Amino acid sequence: MAVEAFDVVDLIRVKRDRGELSTEQIDWLIDAYTRGYVADEQMSAMTMAIFLNGMERREIRDLTMAMIASGERMSFAGLGKPTSDKHSTGGVGDKITLPLMPLVAVFGVAVPQLSGRGLGHTGGTLDKLESIPGWRASLSPEEMFDQLRDVGGVICAAGSGLAPADGKLYALRDITGTVEAIPLIASSIMSKKIAEGTGALVLDVKFGSGAFLQDIERSRELARTMVELGTDAGVATSALLTNMNVPLGLAIGNANEVRESVEVLGGGGPSDVRALTIALAREMLTLAGKPDVDVEAALDDGRAMDKWREVIRAQGGDPDAALPVAKETHVVAAERDGVLVEQQALPFGIAAWRLGAGRARKQDPVQHAAGIDLHAKPGDAVTAGQPLFTLSADEPERFVRALEALEGSYRVGDAGEPVQDGGPLIADRITA
Amino acid sequence: MAVEAFDVVDLIRVKRDRGELSTEQIDWLIDAYTRGYVADEQMSAMTMAIFLNGMERREIRDLTMAMIASGERMSFAGLGKPTSDKHSTGGVGDKITLPLMPLVAVFGVAVPQLSGRGLGHTGGTLDKLESIPGWRASLSPEEMFDQLRDVGGVICAAGSGLAPADGKLYALRDITGTVEAIPLIASSIMSKKIAEGTGALVLDVKFGSGAFLQDIERSRELARTMVELGTDAGVATSALLTNMNVPLGLAIGNANEVRESVEVLGGGGPSDVRALTIALAREMLTLAGKPDVDVEAALDDGRAMDKWREVIRAQGGDPDAALPVAKETHVVAAERDGVLVEQQALPFGIAAWRLGAGRARKQDPVQHAAGIDLHAKPGDAVTAGQPLFTLSADEPERFVRALEALEGSYRVGDAGEPVQDGGPLIADRITA
Repeated sequence: MAVEAFDVVDLIRVKRDRGELSTEQIDWLIDAYTRGYVADEQMSAMTMAIFLNGMERREIRDLTMAMIASGERMSFAGLGKPTSDKHSTGGVGDKITLPLMPLVAVFGVAVPQLSGRGLGHTGGTLDKLESIPGWRASLSPEEMFDQLRDVGGVICAAGSGLAPADGKLYALRDITGTVEAIPLIASSIMSKKIAEGTGALVLDVKFGSGAFLQDIERSRELARTMVELGTDAGVATSALLTNMNVPLGLAIGNANEVRESVEVLGGGGPSDVRALTIALAREMLTLAGKPDVDVEAALDDGRAMDKWREVIRAQGGDPDAALPVAKETHVVAAERDGVLVEQQALPFGIAAWRLGAGRARKQDPVQHAAGIDLHAKPGDAVTAGQPLFTLSADEPERFVRALEALEGSYRVGDAGEPVQDGGPLIADRITA
Repeated sequence: MAVEAFDVVDLIRVKRDRGELSTEQIDWLIDAYTRGYVADEQMSAMTMAIFLNGMERREIRDLTMAMIASGERMSFAGLGKPTSDKHSTGGVGDKITLPLMPLVAVFGVAVPQLSGRGLGHTGGTLDKLESIPGWRASLSPEEMFDQLRDVGGVICAAGSGLAPADGKLYALRDITGTVEAIPLIASSIMSKKIAEGTGALVLDVKFGSGAFLQDIERSRELARTMVELGTDAGVATSALLTNMNVPLGLAIGNANEVRESVEVLGGGGPSDVRALTIALAREMLTLAGKPDVDVEAALDDGRAMDKWREVIRAQGGDPDAALPVAKETHVVAAERDGVLVEQQALPFGIAAWRLGAGRARKQDPVQHAAGIDLHAKPGDAVTAGQPLFTLSADEPERFVRALEALEGSYRVGDAGEPVQDGGPLIADRITA
């Protein structure tokens, strides 16, 4: 493809003036940007124009396919079994990937889970798993393939070879205020998932105060856009719209989220984490052609736990090793009798981040033992003096700013007062 | 000012989400951008957000003042006479600065005309004057001051010390499709004119097919915005809205535009060039406190021509030297009897550019003898075989693409048919 085919300023003007870019123009743009012929400052003007003026379905599909074409494509055709993957748009306390991957793998469906690290108030699956002594996130494509064949599930870091244009574009969007645009989010997520080569994909699209997109209608639009993209690319895709107004489960952090995941794998754990794990597993298995298996039984009879131990070991982790524990804790108790009527996801996410569980910049480390353990969920009756939550950190001075973030974010009210939890856990299911 | 005062991504988000930036935020943004702390890709996202979401009057004023604060300010207080300047938003055949500067200087009003070079289909005053053997565009601030004091007028290149933030921002906008935003155009023009230190300023804001902004209402908005900015900064400012649907005068190029300007200075020349020169001179003189002088007389009695010769000589030019003549010409004649009912400015500007009179990139040279001479104007009766215009170029192969640009851009119709000239030359006058 000749890089002189178009003038990038003309293409920016098209989108700036609410026009549509052709397939050829989008192919050229992404190729030229990946090669460095289109400059970052030109691409950032384009992304702001896309942010403000949107893209048609056909343009979003072209953008996604152009980003896939910028790199390698993986294939699991040689595995001899179906593949099914899950992507969550991220939230506070969202550790679902950890119990979900082994649970689905139990049924002979391979789960090639390429995951990321946390940024800001949203945790990252790899950060959580790295709490486990010995576990390693980096696998070669061959190691990944072998583990999927032999063990049936893998959670590892995405290599830079998949959709490199997306990596470059995401880094640009991050510093230019253009992250939250639906065409750009959808094409970013789906380019990597389609290039990854999974046969089926379930999207867990969060809405609510702790989600990337707070508004449920925008989340629904994102979910629909991604389901369309996957379907158009031949990947069996569906989405659940799930509630992120309150934290998911009782643990927010890294090591404590692993602990909670292991509880769920043992048939216990908080009811919302168990329910969402089961719902997503059913969705993944249905898309992979196994709609009738008994998912709950695999949690309750130890098969999911056995698979978990197997996959952790396969990546060098010791499933029996003690997880790190923070040096300092700070307990916040109820000041009165009543009902916990409010517990906002976003402030709890920010507080956990400030305690050291998250990072502000990509290169920062996380503190695996830092985080928050909730002792009550919205709707629970509490008595004065009863612990509501415990903050954990290695450095006690972190409690001050974490508590600042939590001011006004939780409230004990009177029995009968409406509970501010944003409604049901699963609000909708989107299919092609 | 501490560069850590704001997070640029937050500021981009404010404008992206249709908010207003505070004075402190704008001051910080421009200072940080000039120092390189805010990256080009961040500023281009910001300018696209400004392009699409606009700015309030207060924000535009703050932006202008911040750009002025990024560099030096000149002062002509020591001249002992009033100063008055003119800025045109540019068009096809717009050589008005050439006769206007000496005409105003005749009346003891100093004209400190900092000019630019052409880009694309719009010519540049400095390119035109460089057709004159020996004439030089670069003067030191001291040379400029001395010439204003001793001769009364100067046309020279703007130094890089005035509003350097604007220079950096303009270069960015040029490659990111954000040139045509009114807040950005207005602040760019006015930051340089206010920093230049002129006491009065007349804006010639073009509308029509060959203008920077085609739509008269957008041109009016630009004119109002700039008049407000000048007035707020203590510069007596007014604007004329002038017609750029058809080329101005009969010459489009460089040397041929100098020839036409000299005709006007001698009391002759095309009626539209003479009329606009007189109207702008009256405006400049009125703002400088000389509303009652007889401008036309100075063109007709040789005083303007004497002043022209004086200023050209002061900058090393020989007003009696022969101007360059192109090696090749190509005449286009009328194919039928009738009336010239259409002659569109933009295609003629593009054709002159393709002949070598303009440049595609800043570093390109221009060919001073290349251009177009019109032999008829819209409304003129013509007979079959009568020359309509002559193309001039040093390389005959340039005629092909120039003629392509002109296809369908002029038309001989029947007597009585409406003439497509976009109406009167001066459509409106905007004052504070």
